Order: sequence, then C-alpha cells, then structure tokens
Amino acid sequence: MQNIHTLLTAKTIVPVEPENTVLQDHSIAINNGRIVDICPAKQAAQLYTPQSHFEYEHHILMPGLINAHTHAAMALLRGVASDMPLMQWLQEHIWPIEQQWVNEQFVQDGSELAIAEMLRGGITCFSDMYFYPEVTARVASAIGMRAVIGMIVLEFPTMYASSPDEYLSKGLALYDRYKSDPLISNVFAPHAPYTVSDATFAKLNSYANELDTAIHMHVHETRDEIETSIKEHNKRPLARLDDLGIVSPDLLAVHMTQLLPEEIERVAEAGVTVVHCPQSNLKLASGFCPVQELKQHNTRVIIGTDSCASNDDLNMFAELKIAALLAKGVSRDATAFTAQQSIRAATIDAAQALGIADETGSLQVNKSADVIAVRCDSVESQPMYDLFGHLAYSTDRSRVTDVFVAGRQLLRDRSLTSVSEDEIITKAKRWKENISSNHG
Amino acid sequence: MQNIHTLLTAKTIVPVEPENTVLQDHSIAINNGRIVDICPAKQAAQLYTPQSHFEYEHHILMPGLINAHTHAAMALLRGVASDMPLMQWLQEHIWPIEQQWVNEQFVQDGSELAIAEMLRGGITCFSDMYFYPEVTARVASAIGMRAVIGMIVLEFPTMYASSPDEYLSKGLALYDRYKSDPLISNVFAPHAPYTVSDATFAKLNSYANELDTAIHMHVHETRDEIETSIKEHNKRPLARLDDLGIVSPDLLAVHMTQLLPEEIERVAEAGVTVVHCPQSNLKLASGFCPVQELKQHNTRVIIGTDSCASNDDLNMFAELKIAALLAKGVSRDATAFTAQQSIRAATIDAAQALGIADETGSLQVNKSADVIAVRCDSVESQPMYDLFGHLAYSTDRSRVTDVFVAGRQLLRDRSLTSVSEDEIITKAKRWKENISSNHG
Repeated sequence: MQNIHTLLTAKTIVPVEPENTVLQDHSIAINNGRIVDICPAKQAAQLYTPQSHFEYEHHILMPGLINAHTHAAMALLRGVASDMPLMQWLQEHIWPIEQQWVNEQFVQDGSELAIAEMLRGGITCFSDMYFYPEVTARVASAIGMRAVIGMIVLEFPTMYASSPDEYLSKGLALYDRYKSDPLISNVFAPHAPYTVSDATFAKLNSYANELDTAIHMHVHETRDEIETSIKEHNKRPLARLDDLGIVSPDLLAVHMTQLLPEEIERVAEAGVTVVHCPQSNLKLASGFCPVQELKQHNTRVIIGTDSCASNDDLNMFAELKIAALLAKGVSRDATAFTAQQSIRAATIDAAQALGIADETGSLQVNKSADVIAVRCDSVESQPMYDLFGHLAYSTDRSRVTDVFVAGRQLLRDRSLTSVSEDEIITKAKRWKENISSNHG
Repeated sequence: MQNIHTLLTAKTIVPVEPENTVLQDHSIAINNGRIVDICPAKQAAQLYTPQSHFEYEHHILMPGLINAHTHAAMALLRGVASDMPLMQWLQEHIWPIEQQWVNEQFVQDGSELAIAEMLRGGITCFSDMYFYPEVTARVASAIGMRAVIGMIVLEFPTMYASSPDEYLSKGLALYDRYKSDPLISNVFAPHAPYTVSDATFAKLNSYANELDTAIHMHVHETRDEIETSIKEHNKRPLARLDDLGIVSPDLLAVHMTQLLPEEIERVAEAGVTVVHCPQSNLKLASGFCPVQELKQHNTRVIIGTDSCASNDDLNMFAELKIAALLAKGVSRDATAFTAQQSIRAATIDAAQALGIADETGSLQVNKSADVIAVRCDSVESQPMYDLFGHLAYSTDRSRVTDVFVAGRQLLRDRSLTSVSEDEIITKAKRWKENISSNHG
C-alpha cells in the first residue's frame, strides 16, 4: 500500500485524453498535487492509502476548463453598459471608467471576484490580459488558481505604465518574479494591432522569441479595425503582423471575426491559434469567427469568455456550448464543432496553445491534478445518453460542486475554500456604489 | 387589516409592466391566487395579515418566464443525438425512437421531467406541441404549472391518431375538457406546412376562428422546407398559408429562419407573432431568424427553447440571453434586441401572443400570481449596475429559488413542492435504459 494525499473515486471520469474515452468506476490517485495513477476503483483500494478519499457516486469528473481569453479584473464592471455599439461602449463607458477607477486595488478586488466566479463554474485556469498583471498573478497564486498572465503592452500611457518600454520592463519583471511559481506562467499581451506600433512589436517579438513565450493579442475583432489599418498602414492588421514576423505558432489571435479566405489559409499555414469569444462577439456585434472553416484548415480554435463587461459572465460551460452551436449556425453545417471538439477546445487544446499541456488540460498520469466534479443527480441532468453531448450542451455550471487545482481543493460542495466569498461580494458592492455615483 | 393568503416582500421587484420599472422594498399581496395589491412594504405591513409571509432580502422578484415553444415530453430524449444534419437527425434518430417509444406513459413521464426542469429554471408557463396533448395538460394541471397546450394535427397517422379528423376530434375533446381549468388553455398546433394538407388547414382554420384560438405551427424552419413547398405547391409555405387565410394575428409562427424582405413585410402587416428558438436553430444549422428586422417592422417576437432533443435543455434564461446576443450578431447592430426587450419577449409579449395576458406575463393587480424569486447574493450576481441587463445577460437559472404559479408555491428553496424529483429522475433513467438498449 502506497501513502498518497488524495484519492478521487467516481462512477464516471472523462479524462479528455485519450480521446473519446469514458472511464467507469475508476479512481484518480493524487500525490504532491500530481496525478500518479488512474485505475479501476477496486484496484486503487488495494494500492493506495489516501489521506483524503472523495467518492463521487453521482458526478462526472473531468479536467478543469481553461478560459483562454479574459480580462479578469473587469468583473467589477459586469454589465456596466449594454446594448450599444462597440465604440460608444468603449469611449463613453469602459474607457472613462477605467481611467478613473483602475488601480492596483481595483485589479486585486476584480481578479478575486473573477477567480471566485470562474472556480465556482469549473474553470481551473485562465489566460488574462489587463493592467497591473502582477496583481492578478499574485491573487491567482494566493487563491491557488492556475493562470497564464499576459504581459500587457500598449503604445499609449495609462495609469499602469507611461511608455511601451515601461510596459515591457514591468512585464519582464513579472516574468522573473513568477518563473518558479508552478501555477503562473506568462505570455506577452500586446493589446491589439491598432494600439501598438511597429517598433514596439519588433522589440516585444524579440523578447518573446528569446523567452520562448506566446503572444496573446486581439486581432481582427471588428470591421473598423481592418479599415483603420488599411488607412494607416496600407494593409490589413494580419498582413502587418505577418510582415513583423508575429504570425507564427506562438500567436494566440483573439476574436478573428474578419477573415478573408487567403487569411484563413495563411493562419493555418503559420500555425496560429485562434481564441474564439462567441458571446462577446455577438454582444458587441463584431462579426462571426469562421470557426468551421478554420478547423477544416486544421487551425486550433480555443475558447474564451472575454471580460464580464461584454458577456456578462465568466461561464465557460455556456461559452463552449455557444461556440459549438454558433459554429453550426454560421457554417450551415450541423456537424460542425461537435460536442467533443468543444470540450477539447476548452481543455486540452487550450493547454497546448498556452504551452501548459504538460501540466493541465486532461486527466493523465504525471499531470497536475486540475479536476472538477460535475453533479448529475438533478432533473436537469437526466436522461444522459451521450456524455460528451451532455457536458457540452446540457451542463449548467452550477452543477460543478468540487474543484481541485494542483491537487488542492479550492471548491468544496459549491463553497470556495481559499478565499472568502462574503468579503469578495462586499468589496464588489462597494466598487459598484463608487463607480455608479460617478458615472451615468 | 385584511386577511390574505400570501405576502411577498422583496428588496427588488421587476414587474415588467409598467415598462422600465423597478420597485424597491415593495410587497406583493396575493389572495386566492391573484395579485390584489403591489405597494411599499411598510404600507403592506399595515394593510395585510397574510397566512404566509415570504421576505426576500437578497432576491429580485419578477414574473415567471414563458417558454413559447417546446415539445415537453421530448425531455426524455435530451441529447439523444447531436452534431448531425436535420434530416439525418430526424430520420435516423428522433422519428424511429418516437415511433417505437412514444405512448401515453412516455408523454406523462416526459412532461413531468420537462415541467420539473422548467419550474426549477423560473418558467411558469409553456406552450407545447406534442402527441397525447391531453396527457401533458393533465400533468401540468396536476403539478400546478400553467400551460398552453397545442391541439396537434398531422396529415399522416401516428400512434396518437390515424387521420386528420381524429387529431382534430381529439384536440376538440381536449379543449372541452380543460375549458374551465384556469391553468390550461388550448391553441391549434398543426405541425408544419409540409405535414398538413390544404383541406385539413381549411377545416382547422374554421375551428380556430369559431373558438377564437391561436394557431401554433413550425413555419419556414429550413431551406429544404421552402424548396419542397415550391416543388409541391408552386409557392413558398408562407404564401400557401396566406392563401389559406392562416397568416393572421392568430398565427404563432415558430422558427421563421427563411424570410424574404416581402415576407417580413407581409408578416408585419398581418400581425403574425414569430416564436424564435435560437439555440435549436443554431444546433440544427437551420438558419437565422431576422429578429431585428422583424422588430423594426413591429412584429412581435417571443422566445422558445424548442425541445430538449435539439437544445439540450429548457433554460429560458439562457435562451433569452442568446436571443438578444444573436439578434445583435446577425444584424451587426449591438443596439438590437435590448436586455429589456428580451425580458419582455419572455414574459408579457409571450402572454399577449398566447392570449393569456389577463392572467400572466407581468406582476400587476388582478393578474394571477405567477412570480419567481431570483437570488442575488452569490459572487456571480455582483456587481449589479443595471437590473434588466443583469437579468438578461448574467442570470444562471440555478439562482431561481422560489416559484409561485397562481399563488401556489411550486418551488421552495430550489425544491419542487408538488412532485417528487427523485421519482422523476428514476423514471427518466429507466426510459433511457430502454431506449438506449434498442437504439444505436
């Protein structure tokens, strides 16, 4: 008998890898935060003496979901303005509020709120782009959440940094600080082609090559972005990025709602990953990402919620459902983006794109134990014919009862263990009072 | 002091009518199932002695949602087949399963499952189209749920009826039986233009005129439907229905994803109501209902989940969110189908279209007390800037804790009061075992 920290035993386990696999009556043995074995429950009972044994008779266990694009701290701006065009939304609401209110405290309280919501919805990792990324990294690490933190870069000064060089140096300091934190990794996060200059892109790209990190950026979000680029640079944003050497397997291109056939081919050839945020694209009427065509060209498509200001939640079960449904609708092909593809997009595909597939994205021996338990004993969960279809199309996030990240239980029977929900709510209400009294 | 049955006191009430109204610290006085007063809580405390007093410190009270198109009993086929084209889905899966399994017991158990799910998600009324409608009516009435039951009519024989006349006579018997049930009303429900003959439409339409009932029908769901009609009738389905006198304010046309500009005008002129089922249309890749154009022409658009076989849930909070988001995406106009419009579509607009606006669809004196309580003290519900935006874009149905229909509490702190959830689940699992063992 081997002593281990934790044993999770479940009626049903969907490990995601190997593909198309459902394990019945199996156990996941966890030691020092890592999966050391996955085997039939009877065998596990003979092999392991766990400090904690969780038995899930009515649950599906699966890898935690990965939210591949968000601005976590903007959870404090959940639904602050709706039903208006993108530029009015940004110029009259989001940007003035950010300018007035965003500081380290805002990012701390907003990141806590977002991480609390994400964990309660079965998300165990998020890829973030926002100001004061070192604060979001600190909060995620303290709560025990996995995060890929973007080293944000903009051309213009903000409260966070006064020049592109200052953004970059703050980003590099963040990178150095979290190099040895197993929960935090970093990628460069230039905001968008229209907010970063060629010179800054060149500098950033050489750092990214040196550190071998990905580049996470909004690309081709709106028609307006394309038109502006043609006016200013005489080329479309993607072509400009290509000339700068940024269109590569390291690029995580978020949104991509405006793509010509030759751009779809170029993106595939270059090995770019597309980060699809269907609900945000719909709400801001940005356009449709051609998911099915991208996938037919073997481009990896992963999924993000975008921020709470344009969604207005951080619900990856809802997002992956809409991603699958919308891909079918837009391509007029009901076979597009299947249930299993959408589950993979929200787990293993995202982990691969973010460079953390050795750690997370599937339940496999040697990976970190990033596991969620989805309860299946309510009327909403019956009957259940196909597990992948059920997870993709019929799963309310509120059915996630337990969440483990690196073997540590962060959600227990719907309650967070490492942070106070009451305090988070109190702080969110206070921010809302302040922001409302000075806006609108 | 007046003795009344129930007093509901809440921090926040969204009555839907009057429009754009939010009541703070008000009470709803209920007697004999009807709303007798809505007034400030302090005043209510001086006026009424209730048998039961519910105090909702952390909830929003609002009218129950109306699911304007479903096939409730198909809840037993939740997700039975996914990710395939409509005709393969119907011909290889849905129809063979229905032919083998659908009987009165199936409809009873399926309707119970669906009603349980709907009540737990804040739906207090549904408009149904399925075989054995008298069984669904009986189940709804017994549970205490409001329902508009379709008198289904098809040209071809099924297990339920052998000829159009038998469908009609069974429908009329149903109508007579439930005439005096305050919870149940009836409309005619010819399945679709392609499954009902001109002669049957003529007969049905004269009954509908005589009884002054609406006609609930799938219309222009797919491109294939249009092409078939042109081949067989030398006209598009809507033109054919128009020639038959069916395009009128009494028509509830479900789906309507294939509309020419002149059809959008004709529908508006005739006063047709469009029942939009966005998730089903997406999943089956049927096309996009032009919601924004319809609304610009002052056509009433209401919302349905369609059945669990093509969605795969009966979640009206999700459906109204997607309806609003998709309308923006399809019209490329972020101002389309606002939060408040989508809430109204799922409440008062639906009640008006279904002919039950005297009873339900808003919280107003003299109406039936069809009320839901949405909890707002979780991290997912904070911060809350705009109530309509919050209800439309940020509300998980699992936050519905209490549901009243005609003043009777059917959901109490997430538990159903008038039906056994355990028994419903057990029966659903048994159906699934049987169906799976004989299919696929």
